[in-house]
Amino acid sequence: MGQQPKKLIIDTDPGIDDAMAICAAFNSPEVEVIGLTTIFGNVRTPTATSNAFILLKLAGKEQIPVAEGASSTLSGLSKTRVADFVHGTDGFGNTSQAAVQGLRHEKNAAQFIVDMCTRFPGEIHILALGPLTNIALACQLDDKLGQSLASLVILGGAITINGNVNPAAEANIFGDPAAADYVFGRPLPTYLVPLDVTTQCKLSGTELTAMNGCGAYGSFLASITHFYLEYHRRVMGIDAVYLHDPTAFAAVILPDLFTWSRARLRVLTEGIGAGMTIADVGDKKWNSPNAWSERPIVQVALNVDPEGVRPAILERMLR
Amino acid sequence: MGQQPKKLIIDTDPGIDDAMAICAAFNSPEVEVIGLTTIFGNVRTPTATSNAFILLKLAGKEQIPVAEGASSTLSGLSKTRVADFVHGTDGFGNTSQAAVQGLRHEKNAAQFIVDMCTRFPGEIHILALGPLTNIALACQLDDKLGQSLASLVILGGAITINGNVNPAAEANIFGDPAAADYVFGRPLPTYLVPLDVTTQCKLSGTELTAMNGCGAYGSFLASITHFYLEYHRRVMGIDAVYLHDPTAFAAVILPDLFTWSRARLRVLTEGIGAGMTIADVGDKKWNSPNAWSERPIVQVALNVDPEGVRPAILERMLR
Repeated sequence: MGQQPKKLIIDTDPGIDDAMAICAAFNSPEVEVIGLTTIFGNVRTPTATSNAFILLKLAGKEQIPVAEGASSTLSGLSKTRVADFVHGTDGFGNTSQAAVQGLRHEKNAAQFIVDMCTRFPGEIHILALGPLTNIALACQLDDKLGQSLASLVILGGAITINGNVNPAAEANIFGDPAAADYVFGRPLPTYLVPLDVTTQCKLSGTELTAMNGCGAYGSFLASITHFYLEYHRRVMGIDAVYLHDPTAFAAVILPDLFTWSRARLRVLTEGIGAGMTIADVGDKKWNSPNAWSERPIVQVALNVDPEGVRPAILERMLR
Repeated sequence: MGQQPKKLIIDTDPGIDDAMAICAAFNSPEVEVIGLTTIFGNVRTPTATSNAFILLKLAGKEQIPVAEGASSTLSGLSKTRVADFVHGTDGFGNTSQAAVQGLRHEKNAAQFIVDMCTRFPGEIHILALGPLTNIALACQLDDKLGQSLASLVILGGAITINGNVNPAAEANIFGDPAAADYVFGRPLPTYLVPLDVTTQCKLSGTELTAMNGCGAYGSFLASITHFYLEYHRRVMGIDAVYLHDPTAFAAVILPDLFTWSRARLRVLTEGIGAGMTIADVGDKKWNSPNAWSERPIVQVALNVDPEGVRPAILERMLR
């Protein structure tokens, strides 16, 4: 009688808040996680893959496939910047988790995404928590991906506020600006969850500590978030962490907690603004065509009910 | 016993809302307009100069000097884009005002600004209502201009909202991005009044019509604003006009009506974002130096009390 769970692929660079989002997803009856695809960002891609195996083992869900993704940007640049100062060199707050022998899926991330969309047309949802290289490559493999994909929820961008890499750029978009600009130009059912909303959804230091001993994941999450909390205290001056990735997951299962605006998006790929996402939110008829005019409409979350998102995430992480 | 009026130079490209701001300034005891300097933008520079003469004649203030400014950008580009679709080809809503024989000041705008700052150190306020070419040239003529200038209030930029030329760029900054980026990098007492606040301050079609017959300028302003109102109705879908330039003037005489934020500014000079002003509003300690790090602090108005600004401007225009 119940609604079928959404088939969800999580494209991820775990990553502390990635781990929070993935644990919450494992505990959410609204979704069935049918695969993890990995990408560089918080860590390099091989570490992201290793960390995906650690999370699956922790959850006892080793049957879920992990398809490794790109290790360099769409244009072939090796990324030397990873956010180790946010997530630790291991991506899990330097907690020295035991390595897990996992089996990579035979297909790479982009091909896995295309295969799943072909096999389950109209049923696959993607939650993209890192740079958009794998998504761009999947679009290049399958020109009609937008017709078979149910939704693409992206954590990325900073529309009305400063970025988190520099004043212009948010980390995921900055990680591969050309891939993001390409993806935003494709006819996909895209939902963008930018820093404007994710920085409204926080957990306090006290709430993080209290996770210890709760449910299957509480102790692990409490342990890895120490480092993340220290970063927020030092750099943002807050005794709390931003729930970036979990908020994007909340947009998959509880979209009504967000205010969605229709927008056309471009990403700057060069210069001091590289990695900046500029949204035309459509209040104005332009006098002449511009670089946004031919872009497809994307739904952008410009506001959120944080007191709806916070408990929903917390409760799911700790079930 | 009263406070001395502020000595004000208005750098302007009249322009319908420029005329509104200038008429309000003529009627404001808080300022003494000691010169108009002209620039391209709403119209080409020679038309801006002719229109300055028309305004001075209307006010019976022909003794105020008009120093003509640059007719091309800092990098020498002739600007072919003028906002005739907003202001009419004559800058005054195609109202065919009688030409006035005025006498241009012997110095150009930049030299006039430097001369006045040298003659009245610490006393000169500049209200910049167009592209920042003249201001940049004045800084190049006098490396220490920031020490003798009392304040520089700039109408420009769109910080948290879309621009008005395209989603990225506001018209004044777009008019000479390199000049703006240069000026924002100089140690000047700069106050930026962006679209974020000017679009909150409007006059309705009814209020514009009611100006007819009021005071020295009401009929003139009612006449020239027809065209401007039609533009707002057609493009913005509002039965009102934005008080861009008058709001920037209000920041000169009534700064407490604005919420000022400390920011470091960069302007994109190339690519699809050219003319975009990106403000680091300083909420975050960056992990590594960036293109904003060495920038001086500028005060940016990110909020305003429109119900304070509107009547103050309206009353001053109609005295």
